[in-house]
Amino acid sequence: MKKLINKREDVVKESLEGMAAAYPELISVDLEQQIIVRKDAPIKNKVGIISGGGSGHEPMHGGYVGYGMLDAACPGAVFTSPVPDQMLAASRAVNSGAGVLHIIKNYTGDVMNFEMAAELGSAEGINIANVVTNDDVAVTDSLYTAGRRGVGVTVLLEKIVGGLAETGAPLEQVAALAHKVNEQGRSMGVALTSCTVPAAGKPTFELGEDEMELGIGIHGEPGRRRVKLASAAEVTAMLVQPIIEDLGLKSGEQVLAFVNGMGGTPLIELFVVYDALNRILKGKNISIARNLVGNYITSLEMAGCSITLLRLDDELIKYWDAPVLTPALRWGR
Amino acid sequence: MKKLINKREDVVKESLEGMAAAYPELISVDLEQQIIVRKDAPIKNKVGIISGGGSGHEPMHGGYVGYGMLDAACPGAVFTSPVPDQMLAASRAVNSGAGVLHIIKNYTGDVMNFEMAAELGSAEGINIANVVTNDDVAVTDSLYTAGRRGVGVTVLLEKIVGGLAETGAPLEQVAALAHKVNEQGRSMGVALTSCTVPAAGKPTFELGEDEMELGIGIHGEPGRRRVKLASAAEVTAMLVQPIIEDLGLKSGEQVLAFVNGMGGTPLIELFVVYDALNRILKGKNISIARNLVGNYITSLEMAGCSITLLRLDDELIKYWDAPVLTPALRWGR
Repeated sequence: MKKLINKREDVVKESLEGMAAAYPELISVDLEQQIIVRKDAPIKNKVGIISGGGSGHEPMHGGYVGYGMLDAACPGAVFTSPVPDQMLAASRAVNSGAGVLHIIKNYTGDVMNFEMAAELGSAEGINIANVVTNDDVAVTDSLYTAGRRGVGVTVLLEKIVGGLAETGAPLEQVAALAHKVNEQGRSMGVALTSCTVPAAGKPTFELGEDEMELGIGIHGEPGRRRVKLASAAEVTAMLVQPIIEDLGLKSGEQVLAFVNGMGGTPLIELFVVYDALNRILKGKNISIARNLVGNYITSLEMAGCSITLLRLDDELIKYWDAPVLTPALRWGR
Repeated sequence: MKKLINKREDVVKESLEGMAAAYPELISVDLEQQIIVRKDAPIKNKVGIISGGGSGHEPMHGGYVGYGMLDAACPGAVFTSPVPDQMLAASRAVNSGAGVLHIIKNYTGDVMNFEMAAELGSAEGINIANVVTNDDVAVTDSLYTAGRRGVGVTVLLEKIVGGLAETGAPLEQVAALAHKVNEQGRSMGVALTSCTVPAAGKPTFELGEDEMELGIGIHGEPGRRRVKLASAAEVTAMLVQPIIEDLGLKSGEQVLAFVNGMGGTPLIELFVVYDALNRILKGKNISIARNLVGNYITSLEMAGCSITLLRLDDELIKYWDAPVLTPALRWGR
């Protein structure tokens, strides 16, 4: 295992200390509770938004804590759900009385622990709503999930719903927009290599030199099928076709196109994929009104990418474009 | 070779087409000349700033074209210098009459070709100045260079000098600041793995499972020495000590600390390194007034990182903080 780490068990803690040192004006890190909280939380009359999940997907979620996005993030151990105590501590830290939205990726551990935290928080009088993202069209019921997995849409949802929450909208409206975003987005990913969880010390799975895993989840869990290496144009078509079908996207519609790197694929390749995606959508008269290209929801150093399409309307565009100021996403401010 | 590409010879072209499609509001891509130009260039009364070099270091340089940074970038083939015609075309495209600054990383091919372009441009009446960055403390005279290589400082310089140029400062002043930034910055890098140039189809060099290459350049060219794998804290110390000595940094001074990923190292590890760097500098009473952590000058999918320290004063801080709006760096606007 070749990694820039010290002790395996200290990776998450030391990385959080690094983040705290790098962005003191944006975030506070509570190392005891293992949560990242927006510096100015709780914000009066604003719904608090929290998310969380295993570490190893950086910049998600800690990189999205700040103005116009998340109020707190709960990072678990690498590829391991955070515990209810973290989510409860985060809910307390961001609740100004306007309530808290839990954004949960549909992985069994995350869902169970967030539900327990919501029960505990509600018992303390915190008004909590949630959304469970489940945008991955590759599989229903996989190694880690019942139903579809929550992947790339989570990033877009955190941005859009964070934009609405910043206006002082009530919890009910914020939660409704979150459900709408989740319903309008679909994703699928591909892995060219595996990745190595520090605690395990060896690759999560094996892939032959001429193979790739289609429909992979963000922990290296198996996808639709293992196939022979193909060109970027072919891979892009294999990823986007099921998304378009599942979403029922039609000629004349507009989308946000998100090409996400899994961590180990260089940007130059992600733009080759984006070019291929742009051509395919153009051919179907689907317009890319907004886009995001880069490493935003990763699987450590895994090579590969995922594509997410989000059907857009004026409301979603408005809050996507709204100012954001976090470690990993910033514009308009 | 596992890459998300189509034909090897089309990687740069298709990636540029992807960038053009992703950022139509920021940049124009001239595929024939193979240059990326700021959408609103040339800008009246503003010095035009161009840079360039081999592709494979994304987001550098094309990702830095936009308000407050570069006016144009000239990408060569992967790890290959662009040709003088590209630099000449870029100089023409960004010259408003206020002159053009060439930012050149000290690699022999880049320097030679930029010099030829400057001669041709000058003959056409374009006022051209240049800066050759040479911040890499690891080696003097390497495989690709006479003198020290130009690496991480280039990114910081493009931002700071771009900030000054936006104020309408004359070429002489813009060039003087560029030289000052270069003199105040030093870098050193480490590789844990090699990377594969698409045209070559196999890794540039071999590293044993328990080895790393200290003082690596951004093309995989050899560094100071090959050493056994070490902890993040030890690696950070090995990188930063020569930088501090070479810069003559003293207790009480302030720096911009830049932890750069080479492409294949996950963000979680870069923050572990930043944490270690923060501790070392604190111990020496050197204050990190600004920082940058992420993949900004890469070597395709190489695992590893580089550290750059830039000695700061009020002038450098002012232009570092100035608004920037490019594909890869954006704040304050």
